[in-house]
Amino acid sequence: MKNIQIFDTTLRDGSQGAGISFSVEDKIKIAKALDAFGVSYIEGGWPGANPKDEQFFALAKRLRLSSKLVAFSSTRRKGVKAADDSNLRAVIKSGVKTACIFGKSWDMHVKYALKTTSEENLKMISDSVAFLKSKKLEVIFDAEHFFDGYKNNKNYALASVKAASDAGADIVCLCETNGGMLPSDISKITAQTVEAFPKVKFAIHAHNDSGCAVANSISAVEEGCVMVQGTINGIGERCGNANLCSIIPALQIKKDYKCVAPKALSKLTELSRYVDEIANLIPDDTKPYVGRNAFAHKAGIHVSAIEKNSQTYEHIKPESVGNERRIIVSDMSGKSNVVSKAGELALGLKGDGEDVKQVIKIIKEKENAGYQYEDADGSFFLLTKKALESFKPFFSLKSYRVAVEKDETGAIVSEATVKLNIKGKEEHTVAEGDGPVNALDNCLRKALIKYYPQIKNVFLTDFKVRVVDSKANTAARVRVFIESSDASKSWGTIGVNENIIDASWQALSDAVEYKLIKSKK
Amino acid sequence: MKNIQIFDTTLRDGSQGAGISFSVEDKIKIAKALDAFGVSYIEGGWPGANPKDEQFFALAKRLRLSSKLVAFSSTRRKGVKAADDSNLRAVIKSGVKTACIFGKSWDMHVKYALKTTSEENLKMISDSVAFLKSKKLEVIFDAEHFFDGYKNNKNYALASVKAASDAGADIVCLCETNGGMLPSDISKITAQTVEAFPKVKFAIHAHNDSGCAVANSISAVEEGCVMVQGTINGIGERCGNANLCSIIPALQIKKDYKCVAPKALSKLTELSRYVDEIANLIPDDTKPYVGRNAFAHKAGIHVSAIEKNSQTYEHIKPESVGNERRIIVSDMSGKSNVVSKAGELALGLKGDGEDVKQVIKIIKEKENAGYQYEDADGSFFLLTKKALESFKPFFSLKSYRVAVEKDETGAIVSEATVKLNIKGKEEHTVAEGDGPVNALDNCLRKALIKYYPQIKNVFLTDFKVRVVDSKANTAARVRVFIESSDASKSWGTIGVNENIIDASWQALSDAVEYKLIKSKK
Repeated sequence: MKNIQIFDTTLRDGSQGAGISFSVEDKIKIAKALDAFGVSYIEGGWPGANPKDEQFFALAKRLRLSSKLVAFSSTRRKGVKAADDSNLRAVIKSGVKTACIFGKSWDMHVKYALKTTSEENLKMISDSVAFLKSKKLEVIFDAEHFFDGYKNNKNYALASVKAASDAGADIVCLCETNGGMLPSDISKITAQTVEAFPKVKFAIHAHNDSGCAVANSISAVEEGCVMVQGTINGIGERCGNANLCSIIPALQIKKDYKCVAPKALSKLTELSRYVDEIANLIPDDTKPYVGRNAFAHKAGIHVSAIEKNSQTYEHIKPESVGNERRIIVSDMSGKSNVVSKAGELALGLKGDGEDVKQVIKIIKEKENAGYQYEDADGSFFLLTKKALESFKPFFSLKSYRVAVEKDETGAIVSEATVKLNIKGKEEHTVAEGDGPVNALDNCLRKALIKYYPQIKNVFLTDFKVRVVDSKANTAARVRVFIESSDASKSWGTIGVNENIIDASWQALSDAVEYKLIKSKK
Repeated sequence: MKNIQIFDTTLRDGSQGAGISFSVEDKIKIAKALDAFGVSYIEGGWPGANPKDEQFFALAKRLRLSSKLVAFSSTRRKGVKAADDSNLRAVIKSGVKTACIFGKSWDMHVKYALKTTSEENLKMISDSVAFLKSKKLEVIFDAEHFFDGYKNNKNYALASVKAASDAGADIVCLCETNGGMLPSDISKITAQTVEAFPKVKFAIHAHNDSGCAVANSISAVEEGCVMVQGTINGIGERCGNANLCSIIPALQIKKDYKCVAPKALSKLTELSRYVDEIANLIPDDTKPYVGRNAFAHKAGIHVSAIEKNSQTYEHIKPESVGNERRIIVSDMSGKSNVVSKAGELALGLKGDGEDVKQVIKIIKEKENAGYQYEDADGSFFLLTKKALESFKPFFSLKSYRVAVEKDETGAIVSEATVKLNIKGKEEHTVAEGDGPVNALDNCLRKALIKYYPQIKNVFLTDFKVRVVDSKANTAARVRVFIESSDASKSWGTIGVNENIIDASWQALSDAVEYKLIKSKK
């Protein structure tokens, strides 16, 4: 088993992603999480370019991290001594023990971006590396655009590697900066480069513009790279950096490499969601290994096979990366989906086959009418309960009325009235709200709370509407999805009707009824 | 240049993605879009397993598609004659000329999932292929779990290929069903398989559980596969299928393969967004090639280099796939977007810079409040017109009132009243509708039609609602998007408010006003 060093650049290259803006506190939190997870290196930022990053390094020094903290910077400016370069001085000042500096390895960039000569660029590389080494730092040299450079002028790209290595760089990182390469290019060029410098340790840094960053990183490791640079969830500029949450389990579970401590791997899903939360990104449910749907099964035949042998449709065990299997109920469901979902929700189907067939029949009818139970566990639960048992409702609707009025001053008032039958008594309530659905929600709660105080801590956390059959335009049926939470759990409910108000009412009343039936037990 | 056939399974395997639920109308729309784009094959569904898919094939037959329409199914059941198998009969009945049937190539699956013998499974494959060939169908055989099967029992996996091929299958598709393989495995196994059957045409079908579906598909093509199965945007079960929006441009721009007509490539971004829209998925901005951020550059060294030479930080030209460069955190980006959009809509900006700045300022304020003009050309047009000219409104709202009432019989009545000022006169109308928005729409039309008969042929074709800030639950601001069409054109309008009724009112009145201003000219 070969060791691969994981170099995390979530806080540096990751923060260049559109819409990402980490505060210093955010960066500290993520650094702690990365350290606890056990990556080898944490690239914290670019001191000198950014006052926020200088603050970060000042604070991070006190954290006593086990991971090595890295400051990023560029090679010295043209025509300046390395010792006088403000960027390189800021690296020294940050107090880190490892520096990662990037330099040009594609001569086209030297000409267009740096506007200097090929010789001066090589001197910029070697001077900068030598200066940092003279200050006793570990130095990683990022050969920017290495692969594009290699394709366009192989000898110059290799000369940049030699300049860094001869000057004492501990690791040379081959950067696929534009992200456009495919794995076959990466394999070939990496193999040739490793062969040309048998004594140099190489790293890979890939971007995802071809959708191949993970594959490219793994291919580079297979050809001899000993370090992978990437970010948690693949955040980063344009299409993002290589996603460490996909690379680490691939190398460690599927191939014979060790990236982190074996028990750390089971914290991977947690780490992924934590970083999304701090970055304020909605987690991508389809992310490999760590996404909510990564082990979600919808097709009936898949579910029945999975229950016989999980290997049939799962490439790894979900728990090995801290994720879990989900069984989805839909009109593609067979018997196995319903039985398995019923088990998860403790629905207590009798299992003689007849009750399950009955539920599948009802679901198919409902889905034909536009219902969709995939995320609506609450409504699915109630539907099944009502279909199978002598279900005693907690309340029943007699009538409601909702009015929205905009007057000549532009003010809008929404008012709802609801007449319910609760435990044999008629409750007639009225409430206003910020819109008709909010008014209806307020009204329902006002009526129920005397009888069922447990609904007090139920909150609606999401509300979505979509048209089911758009042909019929504003007269089309709409599907309303509501997510509710209490202190410990969240659940989804659904309603469908031509009338958005009635669809909302269905979802609202299911949300409350689910809470009541669950808290009864 | 070698031809690669693109086999799209968005409507079949794609629809197995969690949260995806296509109506028959949705499927017809997507089939038309795929046909216009020019994929070779469109897999429409699984007749026999699903009544919705049977309806789809009945309707799709009338479309006169240039792409070949494919019905999916499985090999015959064990112990049944192919001619008597209900699934295979449903394929014949669907009337397609191409069938894609899957069968087992991993003996572990034969044992655990099918519960039959290795020999019977091979007979199921050959009988099924032979039966469909006897009915003059083109037959693609999907060798399910081929790569896992090959790793576990190479000879059996190859025997399944031989059974299909000997029975007359036109193409054998190597399926990486569990999605766990890495490109080096795919390359090696594909090369060996192609070598073992030099006369067989092979396809690749990859899933993304390792985050390598795109790379795996490309590697398989490089080793000799002549067809790629995948989906638009990579939708599909668990982590999705191979994303055709990444594979097609890689093969066609970067390698020497032809997948679609060269001019079709520039429609790729549009196709991607159209499918997201129909699937009601929020487009992933970081998607390679087609994402909104795929060519987005944050201010700084990248931007200045890009302006000198776009090759410096862009792997391809954005317009080659119908996407565009975005410069983030820069006034210039705003300016070029506005100028380009204004040209597209014939807005006639004066172009002295001042008018453009004024529009950018208003858009930024509006976007901060939750508006989003990307698909709402109609509202963008009106916003700009109103900002720049002495715009004379066609009507103005004095007040409205909407009431929805459900009585004790369960009947629901929606009634709206609207008071408008039209050409100096007050019009006060009342109308009922199938829901509050439909009632409001009817009311608005009733008032306007006397003055503006041209609105008679305007229809609302889509209606969508999304919460802008979900934290605030049912009191959150909602964004209503409406699409309208007349005989020749369709346009989108938008409204944002805490109150769904008022947000709908904004979008409805923009929809009509856009028609009026456009028909005036």
